[in-house]
Amino acid sequence: MSSAIEIALRAKEAKSEIARADTITKNKILSKISQLLETRKEEIIYANKQDLENAEKNGISKALLDRLKLDEKRIKGLINSVEEVIKLPDPVGEIVEMRRRPNGMLVGRMRIPLGVVFAIYEARPNVTVDIASLCIKSGNAVILRGGSEAIRTNSILAKIIREAIASEGINPDVVVFVDNPSYELVLELIKLEDMIDLVIPRGGEKLIRAISENSRVPVLKHYKGVCHIFVDEYADLEKAYKICLNAKVQRPSVCNAMETLLVHKNIAEKFLPKMGELFRENGVEIRGCEITRKILPYAKPATEDDWYAEYLDLILAVRVVGSLDEAIEHIRKYGSSHTESIITENYSNAMKFIREVDSSSVMVNASTRLADGYEYGLGAEVGISTTKIHAYGPMGLEGLTTLKWILFGNGHIRE
Amino acid sequence: MSSAIEIALRAKEAKSEIARADTITKNKILSKISQLLETRKEEIIYANKQDLENAEKNGISKALLDRLKLDEKRIKGLINSVEEVIKLPDPVGEIVEMRRRPNGMLVGRMRIPLGVVFAIYEARPNVTVDIASLCIKSGNAVILRGGSEAIRTNSILAKIIREAIASEGINPDVVVFVDNPSYELVLELIKLEDMIDLVIPRGGEKLIRAISENSRVPVLKHYKGVCHIFVDEYADLEKAYKICLNAKVQRPSVCNAMETLLVHKNIAEKFLPKMGELFRENGVEIRGCEITRKILPYAKPATEDDWYAEYLDLILAVRVVGSLDEAIEHIRKYGSSHTESIITENYSNAMKFIREVDSSSVMVNASTRLADGYEYGLGAEVGISTTKIHAYGPMGLEGLTTLKWILFGNGHIRE
Repeated sequence: MSSAIEIALRAKEAKSEIARADTITKNKILSKISQLLETRKEEIIYANKQDLENAEKNGISKALLDRLKLDEKRIKGLINSVEEVIKLPDPVGEIVEMRRRPNGMLVGRMRIPLGVVFAIYEARPNVTVDIASLCIKSGNAVILRGGSEAIRTNSILAKIIREAIASEGINPDVVVFVDNPSYELVLELIKLEDMIDLVIPRGGEKLIRAISENSRVPVLKHYKGVCHIFVDEYADLEKAYKICLNAKVQRPSVCNAMETLLVHKNIAEKFLPKMGELFRENGVEIRGCEITRKILPYAKPATEDDWYAEYLDLILAVRVVGSLDEAIEHIRKYGSSHTESIITENYSNAMKFIREVDSSSVMVNASTRLADGYEYGLGAEVGISTTKIHAYGPMGLEGLTTLKWILFGNGHIRE
Repeated sequence: MSSAIEIALRAKEAKSEIARADTITKNKILSKISQLLETRKEEIIYANKQDLENAEKNGISKALLDRLKLDEKRIKGLINSVEEVIKLPDPVGEIVEMRRRPNGMLVGRMRIPLGVVFAIYEARPNVTVDIASLCIKSGNAVILRGGSEAIRTNSILAKIIREAIASEGINPDVVVFVDNPSYELVLELIKLEDMIDLVIPRGGEKLIRAISENSRVPVLKHYKGVCHIFVDEYADLEKAYKICLNAKVQRPSVCNAMETLLVHKNIAEKFLPKMGELFRENGVEIRGCEITRKILPYAKPATEDDWYAEYLDLILAVRVVGSLDEAIEHIRKYGSSHTESIITENYSNAMKFIREVDSSSVMVNASTRLADGYEYGLGAEVGISTTKIHAYGPMGLEGLTTLKWILFGNGHIRE
């Protein structure tokens, strides 16, 4: 078994090779991954079957078993996502500004990879291929630590990725796979701030909190998504029905689904009855404030905890508020800085909401479900951050890079 | 005495007021600070005299006493730096991109303040005014925790700043001054990741490491600056003499001074004798590799430790290397990611150095002393980061902001 330092050193030693690789080489590696996923799918499915059998023996839930499973269709999906990454523009080497200073020197900034990324994730083996492809394209080395349930599947996927890297004459340690399931090892790795540049934990809030509390390396994270929609007194009700329904029921289990609906008191009696019916027809349980319950007698009473809740389910908290300011104040107090939307036809209210709400995505007349790297045109999403440092909101390839300063002088000195 | 949570809550409660303030209001606050510094300079100098007397009693070093001192001339300097911040453009509210997506919605990014900044610093009381001005201009609340030696001076400066904020009808807790010298309190504050958005420690490496190891809030930092200049075989020697001398002797005590000089073997015998003389004339002690010592017999032998050393003094490590690649490898192994410069007239070598060295500032034919917010045109420098996350290199007002996503829809939903 390798120690944490040995693992991190392998990635650190390899990082310059992928950082310096040109786009053509990096795309050749990705094409090779795509080919090998196709030609070796039997092998992958076989390893995955062993993982599934083992997981079943250990009494893992049906939902987790489903996430763990890789069949021919899902491998096709993996191949497609690698092909998508090939199409993305290479962020590395872009010069984002270059100015002549008064003394004649040119000063600018150039985009470079972060260095070494450490990804910690749970059951879904597709994360292995997704994160590795994005790191390769952005010139980063990556240490992959997937869940123990998927260890055979992840091992073969990592082996394929490393073969593809080596086929272009590059050190395969650009992708280091951790096959030791020890959590202690993870805790040691996240202390190595001189070797690892960014930690990306993907999983439940508990995992992410544990990583964040113990890491000395910066962590890209969001704990939860308590997303709000505020239906203003000047809302177009047809838009409101459509957007609120989409935000709650289109996929309730994800972080950008709406969890709390705020309604202006002047429109509540007009808006809530039909909205409530639509929610009921779609199996949504409503937990309302007192005024909501007067209008919707079938709503359950909401407690203080409901305003903080991320249900990830067909449950919705509903509160009637007296003003736009009160709505903004509610979001400030109970929100998670993820995504909030206002439904209004009033120009000043729309602009005030956009300006004053400081969540990572702030919308007018749109479903919170649109807060997503693909929808925003990033091409791919590495993760979503609700920490304001570095990247805020959906993060694409650019989030795996930083800007260094470059200076072209001609004998310039400090006077 | 207030608890850590009480202190952080005060700043958190006030942050929205300064975040929403327009540029005119923020500049009025800064003008008021500038006025009050002038009209109350006697009071400041009196408080500073008490700090100085106390510090002398406690046997503080002459160098520290000098840094602690605020006389009429230095107060004038403080006023000037506030006036400079007034002139800087306000970063808040800038929309850096806005694109129409295929479904017709507009998606863009808007610059917003980070929220609450926590600044921890040592003897120099000018940091109180500098950091507070920059935070006010960028719409951030700030918690200030200066060194205990300067507590009377800092208290009166903070009082003046808070008066200026209140004079515009804004909650003065936009600037919270910690008058409790307890280090335990600092350790508690840096755990409050839900209330504080960024920690900026300014001081020695020991302080910064302690903060970084214990903080759950992201830390903007650089531990040290081991800056290199590589004199290539194709260097213009006149430029090389001028730049290397400037980088070492113009101000040896700062982080962007050169600490190690690398020289290509094909030019060493021609370059080093005169360069060595220039250094000697300026009192620089040279510690050289074996080849250096053959050319400069007066050089002391360099040990492995010298390649890692940040002398911050008139001492220089000198090493002769066989190639540009060897120079880059040396920087990669011993460098601190701060600033490196190549002296060359060769186009390909210049471009290779710019591309392959991943320090926060990479230069051609220029002195490392130019790595500085003012020289780069940022107007002011909040700090320098050698961590690649968020900001890398000299950080100006922009580094105290982040970008949120904004979306203008018209009934858009996720399909």
